[in-house]
Amino acid sequence: MSASQLSVLFFLQMAIILATCRLVGWVGRKYLGQPQVVGEMIAGVILGPSLFGLLAPEIQQMVFPQESRTLLYVGAQFGVGLYMFLVGLGFQGSHFKANATSAAAVSIAGMSAPFVFAILVAPWLLSVPGLFSPDATLYQATLFMGAAIAITAFPMLARIIHERGLSQSPLGTLSLSAGAIDDATAWCLLAVVLASFGMGSGLAITAIGGGVLFAGVVIFVLPRLLAPLGRMAEQQVRDHQAISPTLLSIVLMLFMLATFTTDAIGLHAVFGGFLLGTVMPRGALVKELRRQLEPVAVVLLLPIFFTYSGLNTQLSVVNNMEMLLIAAVVLSGSVLAKFGACWAAARVCGQDNRTALGVGALMNARGLMELIIINIGLQAGFIGPALFSILVVMAIVTTLMTSPLFEAVYGRRARAEGELGSLEALKGQISS
Amino acid sequence: MSASQLSVLFFLQMAIILATCRLVGWVGRKYLGQPQVVGEMIAGVILGPSLFGLLAPEIQQMVFPQESRTLLYVGAQFGVGLYMFLVGLGFQGSHFKANATSAAAVSIAGMSAPFVFAILVAPWLLSVPGLFSPDATLYQATLFMGAAIAITAFPMLARIIHERGLSQSPLGTLSLSAGAIDDATAWCLLAVVLASFGMGSGLAITAIGGGVLFAGVVIFVLPRLLAPLGRMAEQQVRDHQAISPTLLSIVLMLFMLATFTTDAIGLHAVFGGFLLGTVMPRGALVKELRRQLEPVAVVLLLPIFFTYSGLNTQLSVVNNMEMLLIAAVVLSGSVLAKFGACWAAARVCGQDNRTALGVGALMNARGLMELIIINIGLQAGFIGPALFSILVVMAIVTTLMTSPLFEAVYGRRARAEGELGSLEALKGQISS
Repeated sequence: MSASQLSVLFFLQMAIILATCRLVGWVGRKYLGQPQVVGEMIAGVILGPSLFGLLAPEIQQMVFPQESRTLLYVGAQFGVGLYMFLVGLGFQGSHFKANATSAAAVSIAGMSAPFVFAILVAPWLLSVPGLFSPDATLYQATLFMGAAIAITAFPMLARIIHERGLSQSPLGTLSLSAGAIDDATAWCLLAVVLASFGMGSGLAITAIGGGVLFAGVVIFVLPRLLAPLGRMAEQQVRDHQAISPTLLSIVLMLFMLATFTTDAIGLHAVFGGFLLGTVMPRGALVKELRRQLEPVAVVLLLPIFFTYSGLNTQLSVVNNMEMLLIAAVVLSGSVLAKFGACWAAARVCGQDNRTALGVGALMNARGLMELIIINIGLQAGFIGPALFSILVVMAIVTTLMTSPLFEAVYGRRARAEGELGSLEALKGQISS
Repeated sequence: MSASQLSVLFFLQMAIILATCRLVGWVGRKYLGQPQVVGEMIAGVILGPSLFGLLAPEIQQMVFPQESRTLLYVGAQFGVGLYMFLVGLGFQGSHFKANATSAAAVSIAGMSAPFVFAILVAPWLLSVPGLFSPDATLYQATLFMGAAIAITAFPMLARIIHERGLSQSPLGTLSLSAGAIDDATAWCLLAVVLASFGMGSGLAITAIGGGVLFAGVVIFVLPRLLAPLGRMAEQQVRDHQAISPTLLSIVLMLFMLATFTTDAIGLHAVFGGFLLGTVMPRGALVKELRRQLEPVAVVLLLPIFFTYSGLNTQLSVVNNMEMLLIAAVVLSGSVLAKFGACWAAARVCGQDNRTALGVGALMNARGLMELIIINIGLQAGFIGPALFSILVVMAIVTTLMTSPLFEAVYGRRARAEGELGSLEALKGQISS
């Protein structure tokens, strides 16, 4: 296909992607009380071979031909990179201000139970041909499964907590602290898997050494260099109610450099985006960046990622008893290991049962973060389409159960006692 | 190159593109009093074969290899499509409220003089091999040159006028009315060229008939269907200070459908974007769309377009006496035909000399609009790289002369007499 044919097709694809994401999201919100992100995860799967491709393979091939995948891939990479930058911008020191003992207990439980489960299932999964790359070691497979099960939909969790006015409650501070710690850990472990998989020892050193060096520069050197940008932003917002195009451009340039660096050394663009986001000067700059970038990132770019992910999801691969068994074990083990362990840890630390169940329900949501991790695994060739598809199902189901579960174990009572705003806030505008 | 290699490269390209655009833009603003758009037009040329490729051909090929052009092309198409949508959103009925006789006179003069010039030079240009496609007819070449010379940088003109507080002055209303009329006419003529060039009569009918049908639906049917969106936006802004992600998504979906339609029938994405922009319900919706989309469109996407355009600009093609003569004639003829004719028409209608010169200076700026027109011509294969490069120079020079010329003929006196805000507004934040 020529560039101009691809360009025409791109506009059509985007129209279909946006329409499907909004339609499915709307049905989920309206009839199932689900946040928008659940609908978009499902919309992606619908557009792929699992439904659209099953019902009308020729038309699906016409709309999403192989030649157009590169474009969608880059759009998706850029979209998740920018989204993770925004997630980084949303990380706040105050997230870590929960009771330290409880937070440590819940986050350790929320990491170690998934890893125990991963240690148990990894040998089995590795023995089934096609789930992992033939080159994957038991050590790498265990780390990957552990990270994929331990990850929490931190942005979704933060939004639910803020929108319900729970930020200062034990439930809120505990979940935010533990979720942030677990996610940071899971991403580090994923980086180790990526750095060590399928590379000669020289390349692994580039990835690990480069990653450590990059993180060091971003965390220890960059804040001082970025401070003037923060002061410029305060000034500009005071004078013009907005940051200048030049300041926005400088930040975007830094973002491109950060994503390029982590991508080029063999990690993934999301690491650069996220890390840079965490060190941007708080205040006017962060607020303005979120205001100017979030609409396009969430409404326009993330749907490309969901679609690209859905195009790689082949639910038809899960078509025999063994695959169904694996899917059932992975799903139930993931829920038990995350929801169960976090609930138990919170109880042990003296939280009442209702709060502990609420913490477990929130920590159990995987959402977009899970999709990002497993797409990285698939792109690196570390996992195959079958395991990818099983994990997509796990991501969707655990995200889907969050709202009703949270409502059942915590929300209903809390609202009756006036602790909580109306559920409408949750049903409404949550987009991730 | 694999998708993931292209994706890594994309982040690097974007970092370089953003850095170059800002750096050159900053130099132009600081030392030459030029608006940002001039710097970015030049930055694009710098990144192409005319400078970067001349000084370091290997590195330039590494950063912008042929395989990555498709990606830049689609990004550029999307960027100008979205930008033209924003330009359409900025069109206001009040732009046409100038004294009707003067506005008609200036706009007719501003169209007919360029066409007289085009009629004179087109036979000569057609006789030089390589400037136009061998399939181009004299009629098409004349229309194209006329449109390319008659076009005005309407968004730039509107911004200069608003930022200087001249919206209610004779200069402001006259320039805005005449500029809007001329631009609309030039785009229609370009559509005729595109529809008729290099297509069988069947395809030409699709393009012309489809274009007329599309315009009819957008202008006469869509406003009624879009009205509820406008009311939703008013409500949402009242309640939440912003439109919802769902509303933004619906508008983007309509935008994708409009650009796809005009692209697919053989016109160009910009027509769909622009037309849709002009009929979106005015008020909260338009204001919010501009607020949410303009930063990304102008700061992130337009630089991709400038770069793509610059990659196709080969100033080295203008390397002999004949080419230099053509460039000189096209440039001086364009300035005389637009600046001269508009000035004369305004004088004839009774404007004082200072106002008439100011109108001429503003109408003479070609800016981004010219670049869009000639890129469309190049993409369609209607003009060759040499004529494209000559017209790039014409676009840059006429845009470059606008600020100093306007200042010399109008601004300095007006400021001395207190009619005008400080020049700082112009030097400052104009980004297009």
